[in-house]
Amino acid sequence: MPGELEVVLLDVNETLSDLEPLRGRLAAVGAPGHLLDAWFAATLRDGFALAVGEAQAPFLEVGAAVLRTLLAPLPALTLPLEQAVQQVLEGMGALGVHPDVPEGLRLLAGGGLRVVPFTNGAADSAAQLLERAGLSALVERCLSVQDAGRWKPHPQSYAYALGQCRVEPGKAALVAVHPWDTDGARRSGLVSGWVDRADVPYPEVFLPPDVRGPDLPTVARALLDR
Amino acid sequence: MPGELEVVLLDVNETLSDLEPLRGRLAAVGAPGHLLDAWFAATLRDGFALAVGEAQAPFLEVGAAVLRTLLAPLPALTLPLEQAVQQVLEGMGALGVHPDVPEGLRLLAGGGLRVVPFTNGAADSAAQLLERAGLSALVERCLSVQDAGRWKPHPQSYAYALGQCRVEPGKAALVAVHPWDTDGARRSGLVSGWVDRADVPYPEVFLPPDVRGPDLPTVARALLDR
Repeated sequence: MPGELEVVLLDVNETLSDLEPLRGRLAAVGAPGHLLDAWFAATLRDGFALAVGEAQAPFLEVGAAVLRTLLAPLPALTLPLEQAVQQVLEGMGALGVHPDVPEGLRLLAGGGLRVVPFTNGAADSAAQLLERAGLSALVERCLSVQDAGRWKPHPQSYAYALGQCRVEPGKAALVAVHPWDTDGARRSGLVSGWVDRADVPYPEVFLPPDVRGPDLPTVARALLDR
Repeated sequence: MPGELEVVLLDVNETLSDLEPLRGRLAAVGAPGHLLDAWFAATLRDGFALAVGEAQAPFLEVGAAVLRTLLAPLPALTLPLEQAVQQVLEGMGALGVHPDVPEGLRLLAGGGLRVVPFTNGAADSAAQLLERAGLSALVERCLSVQDAGRWKPHPQSYAYALGQCRVEPGKAALVAVHPWDTDGARRSGLVSGWVDRADVPYPEVFLPPDVRGPDLPTVARALLDR
Protein backbone atom coordinates (compact mmCIF):
# COMPACT_ATOMS: atom_id res chain seq x y z
CA MET A 1 0.00 0.00 0.00
CA PRO A 2 2.37 2.74 -1.21
CA GLY A 3 1.98 6.20 0.19
CA GLU A 4 0.42 5.08 3.46
CA LEU A 5 3.51 5.55 5.59
CA GLU A 6 3.88 9.00 7.16
CA VAL A 7 6.42 8.68 9.97
CA VAL A 8 9.61 6.69 10.43
CA LEU A 9 10.79 6.24 14.00
CA LEU A 10 14.51 5.50 14.09
CA ASP A 11 16.26 3.69 16.89
CA VAL A 12 19.42 5.60 17.86
CA ASN A 13 22.05 3.59 19.82
CA GLU A 14 23.81 1.28 17.30
CA THR A 15 21.19 1.96 14.61
CA LEU A 16 22.35 5.54 13.96
CA SER A 17 25.35 5.80 16.29
CA ASP A 18 28.50 3.73 16.05
CA LEU A 19 29.49 2.52 19.53
CA GLU A 20 32.89 1.18 18.44
CA PRO A 21 34.91 4.17 19.87
CA LEU A 22 33.82 3.00 23.34
CA ARG A 23 36.17 0.01 22.95
CA GLY A 24 39.12 2.40 22.90
CA ARG A 25 37.77 4.15 25.99
CA LEU A 26 37.50 0.80 27.79
CA ALA A 27 41.08 -0.03 26.82
CA ALA A 28 42.23 3.40 28.06
CA VAL A 29 40.95 2.63 31.59
CA GLY A 30 42.57 -0.83 31.58
CA ALA A 31 39.57 -2.93 30.54
CA PRO A 32 39.32 -5.26 27.53
CA GLY A 33 37.53 -3.64 24.58
CA HIS A 34 35.27 -6.67 24.17
CA LEU A 35 33.46 -5.64 27.37
CA LEU A 36 31.52 -3.24 25.13
CA ASP A 37 29.31 -6.07 23.88
CA ALA A 38 28.53 -7.46 27.34
CA TRP A 39 27.99 -3.92 28.67
CA PHE A 40 25.51 -2.88 26.01
CA ALA A 41 23.57 -6.18 26.15
CA ALA A 42 23.46 -6.07 29.97
CA THR A 43 22.37 -2.42 29.99
CA LEU A 44 19.41 -3.29 27.78
CA ARG A 45 18.78 -6.43 29.87
CA ASP A 46 18.49 -4.38 33.06
CA GLY A 47 16.45 -1.63 31.43
CA PHE A 48 14.04 -4.24 30.06
CA ALA A 49 13.85 -5.91 33.50
CA LEU A 50 12.67 -2.59 34.94
CA ALA A 51 10.12 -2.27 32.10
CA VAL A 52 8.83 -5.77 32.91
CA GLY A 53 8.34 -4.55 36.48
CA GLU A 54 6.55 -1.40 35.21
CA ALA A 55 9.45 0.82 36.31
CA GLN A 56 12.30 2.64 34.62
CA ALA A 57 15.56 4.49 35.10
CA PRO A 58 17.57 6.72 32.72
CA PHE A 59 19.77 4.89 30.20
CA LEU A 60 23.02 6.33 31.52
CA GLU A 61 22.17 5.37 35.13
CA VAL A 62 21.44 1.80 34.10
CA GLY A 63 24.55 1.77 31.93
CA ALA A 64 26.75 3.16 34.71
CA ALA A 65 25.48 0.55 37.19
CA VAL A 66 26.24 -2.25 34.73
CA LEU A 67 29.67 -0.82 33.96
CA ARG A 68 30.53 -0.72 37.68
CA THR A 69 29.78 -4.45 37.97
CA LEU A 70 31.94 -5.17 34.90
CA LEU A 71 34.89 -2.97 35.85
CA ALA A 72 34.97 -3.54 39.63
CA PRO A 73 36.55 -7.03 39.46
CA LEU A 74 39.31 -5.98 37.01
CA PRO A 75 42.82 -5.92 38.51
CA ALA A 76 44.35 -3.52 35.98
CA LEU A 77 42.08 -0.47 36.09
CA THR A 78 44.15 2.66 35.50
CA LEU A 79 41.71 4.89 37.41
CA PRO A 80 39.55 4.63 40.53
CA LEU A 81 36.31 2.77 39.66
CA GLU A 82 33.98 5.74 39.53
CA GLN A 83 36.37 7.81 37.41
CA ALA A 84 36.84 4.89 35.04
CA VAL A 85 33.07 4.48 34.66
CA GLN A 86 32.58 8.16 33.91
CA GLN A 87 35.53 8.25 31.50
CA VAL A 88 34.02 5.44 29.43
CA LEU A 89 30.45 6.77 29.50
CA GLU A 90 31.52 10.27 28.46
CA GLY A 91 32.27 8.59 25.16
CA MET A 92 28.51 8.24 24.60
CA GLY A 93 28.45 12.02 24.08
CA ALA A 94 31.10 11.98 21.36
CA LEU A 95 29.91 9.20 19.04
CA GLY A 96 29.47 9.55 15.29
CA VAL A 97 26.93 7.97 12.96
CA HIS A 98 27.50 4.90 10.77
CA PRO A 99 28.70 5.78 7.22
CA ASP A 100 25.37 4.67 5.66
CA VAL A 101 23.23 6.89 7.91
CA PRO A 102 23.40 10.22 6.00
CA GLU A 103 22.19 8.65 2.73
CA GLY A 104 19.52 6.69 4.58
CA LEU A 105 18.14 9.82 6.25
CA ARG A 106 18.23 11.77 2.98
CA LEU A 107 16.26 9.02 1.22
CA LEU A 108 13.62 8.87 3.97
CA ALA A 109 13.19 12.63 4.25
CA GLY A 110 13.47 13.09 0.47
CA GLY A 111 10.74 10.49 0.04
CA GLY A 112 8.37 12.68 2.02
CA LEU A 113 8.49 10.77 5.31
CA ARG A 114 8.69 12.48 8.67
CA VAL A 115 11.91 11.21 10.29
CA VAL A 116 11.81 10.93 14.11
CA PRO A 117 14.67 9.36 16.09
CA PHE A 118 13.20 7.53 19.11
CA THR A 119 15.73 6.38 21.67
CA ASN A 120 16.05 4.43 24.92
CA GLY A 121 18.71 7.04 25.72
CA ALA A 122 18.20 10.77 26.14
CA ALA A 123 16.53 12.92 23.46
CA ASP A 124 19.24 15.59 23.87
CA SER A 125 21.95 13.04 23.27
CA ALA A 126 20.25 11.88 20.05
CA ALA A 127 19.81 15.47 18.89
CA GLN A 128 23.50 16.21 19.54
CA LEU A 129 24.57 13.08 17.63
CA LEU A 130 22.68 14.30 14.56
CA GLU A 131 23.99 17.84 15.04
CA ARG A 132 27.60 16.59 15.08
CA ALA A 133 26.88 14.66 11.88
CA GLY A 134 25.28 17.68 10.20
CA LEU A 135 21.99 15.84 9.78
CA SER A 136 19.66 17.80 12.08
CA ALA A 137 17.75 19.35 9.18
CA LEU A 138 16.58 15.92 8.04
CA VAL A 139 14.77 15.01 11.27
CA GLU A 140 11.56 16.48 12.68
CA ARG A 141 12.47 16.06 16.36
CA CYS A 142 14.07 13.49 18.70
CA LEU A 143 11.95 11.50 21.16
CA SER A 144 13.05 9.54 24.24
CA VAL A 145 11.45 6.79 26.30
CA GLN A 146 12.33 8.90 29.35
CA ASP A 147 9.16 10.86 28.60
CA ALA A 148 7.20 7.68 27.80
CA GLY A 149 7.63 6.17 31.28
CA ARG A 150 8.82 2.84 29.85
CA TRP A 151 11.75 1.74 27.70
CA LYS A 152 11.23 0.17 24.32
CA PRO A 153 10.00 -2.52 23.67
CA HIS A 154 7.22 -1.83 26.23
CA PRO A 155 3.96 -1.08 24.32
CA GLN A 156 3.64 2.17 26.31
CA SER A 157 6.83 3.46 24.69
CA TYR A 158 5.62 3.05 21.10
CA ALA A 159 2.19 4.43 22.05
CA TYR A 160 3.93 7.52 23.44
CA ALA A 161 5.92 8.09 20.23
CA LEU A 162 2.83 7.63 18.05
CA GLY A 163 0.91 10.06 20.25
CA GLN A 164 3.67 12.66 20.04
CA CYS A 165 3.70 12.31 16.25
CA ARG A 166 -0.13 12.24 16.05
CA VAL A 167 -0.01 9.24 13.76
CA GLU A 168 -1.76 5.86 13.75
CA PRO A 169 0.41 2.74 14.22
CA GLY A 170 -0.18 1.51 10.64
CA LYS A 171 1.15 4.76 9.21
CA ALA A 172 4.38 4.63 11.20
CA ALA A 173 7.46 2.45 10.83
CA LEU A 174 10.17 1.68 13.35
CA VAL A 175 13.64 1.04 11.96
CA ALA A 176 16.36 -0.55 14.08
CA VAL A 177 19.34 -2.87 14.05
CA HIS A 178 17.80 -4.61 17.09
CA PRO A 179 15.34 -7.45 16.57
CA TRP A 180 13.82 -6.82 20.04
CA ASP A 181 12.85 -3.35 18.76
CA THR A 182 11.39 -4.45 15.41
CA ASP A 183 9.51 -7.20 17.29
CA GLY A 184 8.12 -4.76 19.86
CA ALA A 185 7.11 -2.28 17.15
CA ARG A 186 5.24 -4.97 15.23
CA ARG A 187 3.44 -6.07 18.40
CA SER A 188 2.31 -2.44 18.73
CA GLY A 189 1.00 -2.37 15.16
CA LEU A 190 3.83 -0.44 13.50
CA VAL A 191 5.58 -1.41 10.29
CA SER A 192 9.10 -2.61 11.11
CA GLY A 193 12.40 -2.37 9.28
CA TRP A 194 15.51 -4.28 10.29
CA VAL A 195 18.98 -2.99 9.41
CA ASP A 196 21.31 -6.00 9.39
CA ARG A 197 24.77 -4.46 9.02
CA ALA A 198 26.49 -7.53 10.50
CA ASP A 199 24.77 -10.01 8.11
CA VAL A 200 23.49 -12.33 10.85
CA PRO A 201 20.41 -14.59 11.00
CA TYR A 202 17.30 -12.81 12.34
CA PRO A 203 16.36 -14.48 15.67
CA GLU A 204 13.32 -16.62 14.93
CA VAL A 205 11.97 -16.13 18.46
CA PHE A 206 10.94 -12.60 17.38
CA LEU A 207 8.25 -11.52 14.89
CA PRO A 208 9.97 -11.04 11.53
CA PRO A 209 10.48 -7.48 10.26
CA ASP A 210 8.33 -6.20 7.39
CA VAL A 211 11.39 -5.06 5.47
CA ARG A 212 15.11 -5.68 5.93
CA GLY A 213 18.41 -4.81 4.35
CA PRO A 214 22.17 -4.61 4.97
CA ASP A 215 22.10 -0.83 5.54
CA LEU A 216 19.78 2.10 6.20
CA PRO A 217 19.47 3.22 2.54
CA THR A 218 18.30 -0.26 1.50
CA VAL A 219 15.71 -0.34 4.28
CA ALA A 220 14.67 3.24 3.43
CA ARG A 221 14.09 2.31 -0.22
CA ALA A 222 12.13 -0.79 0.79
CA LEU A 223 9.89 1.31 3.06
CA LEU A 224 9.32 3.89 0.31
CA ASP A 225 8.54 1.13 -2.23
CA ARG A 226 5.92 -0.59 -0.07
CA MET B 1 10.28 -11.90 62.29
CA PRO B 2 12.05 -15.27 62.61
CA GLY B 3 10.16 -18.36 61.58
CA GLU B 4 7.94 -16.60 59.09
CA LEU B 5 9.77 -17.77 55.99
CA GLU B 6 8.55 -21.10 54.57
CA VAL B 7 9.88 -21.35 51.03
CA VAL B 8 13.10 -20.31 49.32
CA LEU B 9 12.98 -20.01 45.55
CA LEU B 10 16.45 -20.34 44.07
CA ASP B 11 17.48 -18.93 40.73
CA VAL B 12 19.42 -21.59 38.78
CA ASN B 13 21.60 -20.30 35.89
CA GLU B 14 24.72 -18.74 37.46
CA THR B 15 23.18 -18.79 40.96
CA LEU B 16 23.45 -22.58 41.34
CA SER B 17 25.20 -23.55 38.09
CA ASP B 18 28.67 -22.47 37.05
CA LEU B 19 28.61 -21.39 33.39
CA GLU B 20 32.41 -21.13 33.09
CA PRO B 21 32.84 -24.45 31.18
CA LEU B 22 30.94 -22.85 28.29
CA ARG B 23 34.01 -20.66 27.63
CA GLY B 24 35.96 -23.79 26.73
CA ARG B 25 33.15 -24.91 24.45
CA LEU B 26 33.21 -21.54 22.70
CA ALA B 27 36.97 -21.81 22.25
CA ALA B 28 36.56 -25.34 20.87
CA VAL B 29 34.38 -24.06 18.00
CA GLY B 30 36.79 -21.21 17.23
CA ALA B 31 35.08 -18.40 19.18
CA PRO B 32 36.61 -16.26 21.95
CA GLY B 33 35.65 -17.46 25.43
CA HIS B 34 34.64 -13.95 26.47
CA LEU B 35 31.58 -14.25 24.21
CA LEU B 36 30.00 -16.14 27.13
CA ASP B 37 29.27 -12.87 28.94
CA ALA B 38 27.71 -11.14 25.95
CA TRP B 39 25.76 -14.30 25.08
CA PHE B 40 24.22 -14.75 28.52
CA ALA B 41 23.38 -11.04 28.91
CA ALA B 42 21.87 -10.91 25.41
CA THR B 43 19.86 -14.09 25.99
CA LEU B 44 18.28 -12.54 29.08
CA ARG B 45 17.84 -9.24 27.19
CA ASP B 46 15.86 -10.96 24.44
CA GLY B 47 13.86 -13.11 26.85
CA PHE B 48 12.94 -10.01 28.85
CA ALA B 49 12.00 -8.17 25.64
CA LEU B 50 9.50 -10.94 24.91
CA ALA B 51 8.18 -10.70 28.49
CA VAL B 52 7.71 -6.92 28.03
CA GLY B 53 5.63 -7.80 24.96
CA GLU B 54 3.62 -10.36 26.95
CA ALA B 55 5.18 -13.23 25.01
CA GLN B 56 7.80 -15.87 25.64
CA ALA B 57 10.03 -18.55 24.10
CA PRO B 58 12.04 -21.37 25.69
CA PHE B 59 15.43 -20.35 27.13
CA LEU B 60 17.42 -22.59 24.80
CA GLU B 61 15.63 -21.24 21.71
CA VAL B 62 16.35 -17.65 22.74
CA GLY B 63 19.93 -18.62 23.64
CA ALA B 64 20.47 -20.42 20.31
CA ALA B 65 19.17 -17.43 18.33
CA VAL B 66 21.53 -15.09 20.18
CA LEU B 67 24.47 -17.45 19.73
CA ARG B 68 23.84 -17.60 15.96
CA THR B 69 24.11 -13.80 15.77
CA LEU B 70 27.35 -13.87 17.80
CA LEU B 71 29.02 -16.77 15.95
CA ALA B 72 27.87 -16.03 12.38
CA PRO B 73 30.31 -13.14 11.78
CA LEU B 74 33.35 -15.06 13.10
CA PRO B 75 35.88 -16.02 10.43
CA ALA B 76 37.52 -18.88 12.33
CA LEU B 77 34.61 -21.16 13.24
CA THR B 78 35.78 -24.77 13.20
CA LEU B 79 32.30 -26.13 12.44
CA PRO B 80 29.31 -25.10 10.31
CA LEU B 81 27.27 -22.45 12.19
CA GLU B 82 24.42 -24.66 13.34
CA GLN B 83 26.73 -27.43 14.56
CA ALA B 84 28.83 -24.87 16.42
CA VAL B 85 25.73 -23.44 18.13
CA GLN B 86 24.54 -26.89 19.20
CA GLN B 87 28.01 -27.93 20.37
CA VAL B 88 28.21 -24.92 22.70
CA LEU B 89 24.65 -25.19 24.00
CA GLU B 90 24.99 -28.89 24.75
CA GLY B 91 27.33 -27.70 27.48
CA MET B 92 24.30 -26.33 29.35
CA GLY B 93 23.37 -29.96 30.04
CA ALA B 94 26.72 -30.82 31.60
CA LEU B 95 27.28 -27.94 34.05
CA GLY B 96 28.17 -28.35 37.70
CA VAL B 97 27.20 -26.26 40.73
CA HIS B 98 29.37 -23.59 42.38
CA PRO B 99 31.47 -24.95 45.29
CA ASP B 100 29.40 -23.05 47.89
CA VAL B 101 26.06 -24.45 46.71
CA PRO B 102 25.98 -27.80 48.60
CA GLU B 103 26.54 -26.15 52.01
CA GLY B 104 24.02 -23.42 51.13
CA LEU B 105 21.32 -25.92 50.26
CA ARG B 106 22.05 -28.00 53.39
CA LEU B 107 21.71 -24.91 55.58
CA LEU B 108 18.41 -23.86 53.99
CA ALA B 109 16.86 -27.34 54.09
CA GLY B 110 18.36 -28.07 57.53
CA GLY B 111 16.81 -24.83 58.78
CA GLY B 112 13.37 -26.15 57.91
CA LEU B 113 12.83 -24.18 54.71
CA ARG B 114 11.30 -25.69 51.60
CA VAL B 115 13.91 -25.29 48.85
CA VAL B 116 12.51 -24.77 45.33
CA PRO B 117 14.78 -23.97 42.37
CA PHE B 118 12.89 -21.65 39.99
CA THR B 119 14.52 -21.11 36.61
CA ASN B 120 14.17 -19.15 33.38
CA GLY B 121 15.51 -22.36 31.83
CA ALA B 122 13.87 -25.78 31.79
CA ALA B 123 12.76 -27.51 35.01
CA ASP B 124 14.27 -30.81 33.79
CA SER B 125 17.61 -29.16 33.23
CA ALA B 126 17.60 -27.73 36.79
CA ALA B 127 16.63 -31.13 38.22
CA GLN B 128 19.45 -32.83 36.31
CA LEU B 129 21.97 -30.23 37.52
CA LEU B 130 21.08 -31.04 41.13
CA GLU B 131 21.05 -34.77 40.39
CA ARG B 132 24.59 -34.59 38.97
CA ALA B 133 25.68 -32.70 42.10
CA GLY B 134 24.02 -35.26 44.41
CA LEU B 135 21.78 -32.58 45.90
CA SER B 136 18.32 -33.68 44.73
CA ALA B 137 17.24 -34.79 48.19
CA LEU B 138 17.57 -31.23 49.51
CA VAL B 139 15.04 -29.69 47.10
CA GLU B 140 11.27 -30.11 47.03
CA ARG B 141 10.84 -29.75 43.26
CA CYS B 142 12.14 -27.62 40.39
CA LEU B 143 9.91 -24.99 38.77
CA SER B 144 10.32 -23.25 35.40
CA VAL B 145 8.94 -20.06 33.90
CA GLN B 146 8.01 -22.16 30.87
CA ASP B 147 4.91 -23.20 32.83
CA ALA B 148 4.36 -19.64 34.10
CA GLY B 149 3.90 -18.14 30.63
CA ARG B 150 6.40 -15.35 31.34
CA TRP B 151 10.10 -15.23 32.21
CA LYS B 152 11.30 -13.76 35.46
CA PRO B 153 11.20 -10.88 36.36
CA HIS B 154 7.61 -10.61 35.04
CA PRO B 155 5.20 -10.54 38.04
CA GLN B 156 3.27 -13.45 36.49
CA SER B 157 6.35 -15.66 36.90
CA TYR B 158 6.70 -15.13 40.66
CA ALA B 159 2.91 -15.43 41.10
CA TYR B 160 3.09 -18.79 39.35
CA ALA B 161 5.85 -20.07 41.63
CA LEU B 162 4.05 -18.89 44.76
CA GLY B 163 0.86 -20.57 43.56
CA GLN B 164 2.65 -23.85 42.88
CA CYS B 165 4.16 -23.72 46.38
CA ARG B 166 0.85 -22.59 47.94
CA VAL B 167 2.63 -19.89 49.88
CA GLU B 168 2.03 -16.16 50.35
CA PRO B 169 4.66 -13.74 48.94
CA GLY B 170 5.77 -12.59 52.42
CA LYS B 171 6.57 -16.17 53.43
CA ALA B 172 8.75 -16.82 50.40
CA ALA B 173 12.23 -15.62 49.50
CA LEU B 174 13.95 -15.50 46.12
CA VAL B 175 17.71 -15.93 46.13
CA ALA B 176 19.79 -15.06 43.08
CA VAL B 177 23.10 -13.67 41.89
CA HIS B 178 21.12 -11.42 39.54
CA PRO B 179 19.92 -8.01 40.75
CA TRP B 180 17.13 -8.03 38.11
CA ASP B 181 15.76 -11.14 39.84
CA THR B 182 15.99 -9.87 43.42
CA ASP B 183 14.41 -6.60 42.22
CA GLY B 184 11.56 -8.41 40.48
CA ALA B 185 10.95 -10.64 43.49
CA ARG B 186 10.74 -7.64 45.81
CA ARG B 187 8.29 -5.91 43.46
CA SER B 188 6.15 -9.05 43.76
CA GLY B 189 6.27 -8.95 47.57
CA LEU B 190 8.84 -11.67 48.19
CA VAL B 191 11.84 -11.43 50.47
CA SER B 192 15.01 -11.21 48.37
CA GLY B 193 18.54 -12.47 48.89
CA TRP B 194 21.47 -11.45 46.71
CA VAL B 195 24.51 -13.70 46.34
CA ASP B 196 27.44 -11.47 45.34
CA ARG B 197 30.22 -13.94 44.50
CA ALA B 198 32.06 -11.39 42.35
CA ASP B 199 32.11 -8.66 45.04
CA VAL B 200 30.59 -5.95 42.83
CA PRO B 201 28.44 -2.91 43.70
CA TYR B 202 24.70 -3.66 43.70
CA PRO B 203 23.12 -1.62 40.85
CA GLU B 204 21.29 1.25 42.53
CA VAL B 205 18.66 1.33 39.76
CA PHE B 206 17.16 -1.81 41.35
CA LEU B 207 15.38 -2.22 44.68
CA PRO B 208 18.00 -3.35 47.22
CA PRO B 209 17.92 -6.97 48.39
CA ASP B 210 16.69 -7.76 51.92
CA VAL B 211 19.79 -9.82 52.65
CA ARG B 212 23.09 -10.24 50.83
CA GLY B 213 26.35 -12.07 51.12
CA PRO B 214 29.40 -13.27 49.21
CA ASP B 215 28.09 -16.87 48.91
CA LEU B 216 24.97 -18.98 49.28
CA PRO B 217 25.71 -20.17 52.88
CA THR B 218 26.03 -16.56 54.08
CA VAL B 219 22.73 -15.61 52.43
CA ALA B 220 21.12 -18.79 53.77
CA ARG B 221 22.19 -17.94 57.36
CA ALA B 222 20.95 -14.36 56.95
CA LEU B 223 17.56 -15.61 55.79
CA LEU B 224 17.33 -18.08 58.68
CA ASP B 225 18.33 -15.38 61.19
CA ARG B 226 15.71 -12.86 60.04
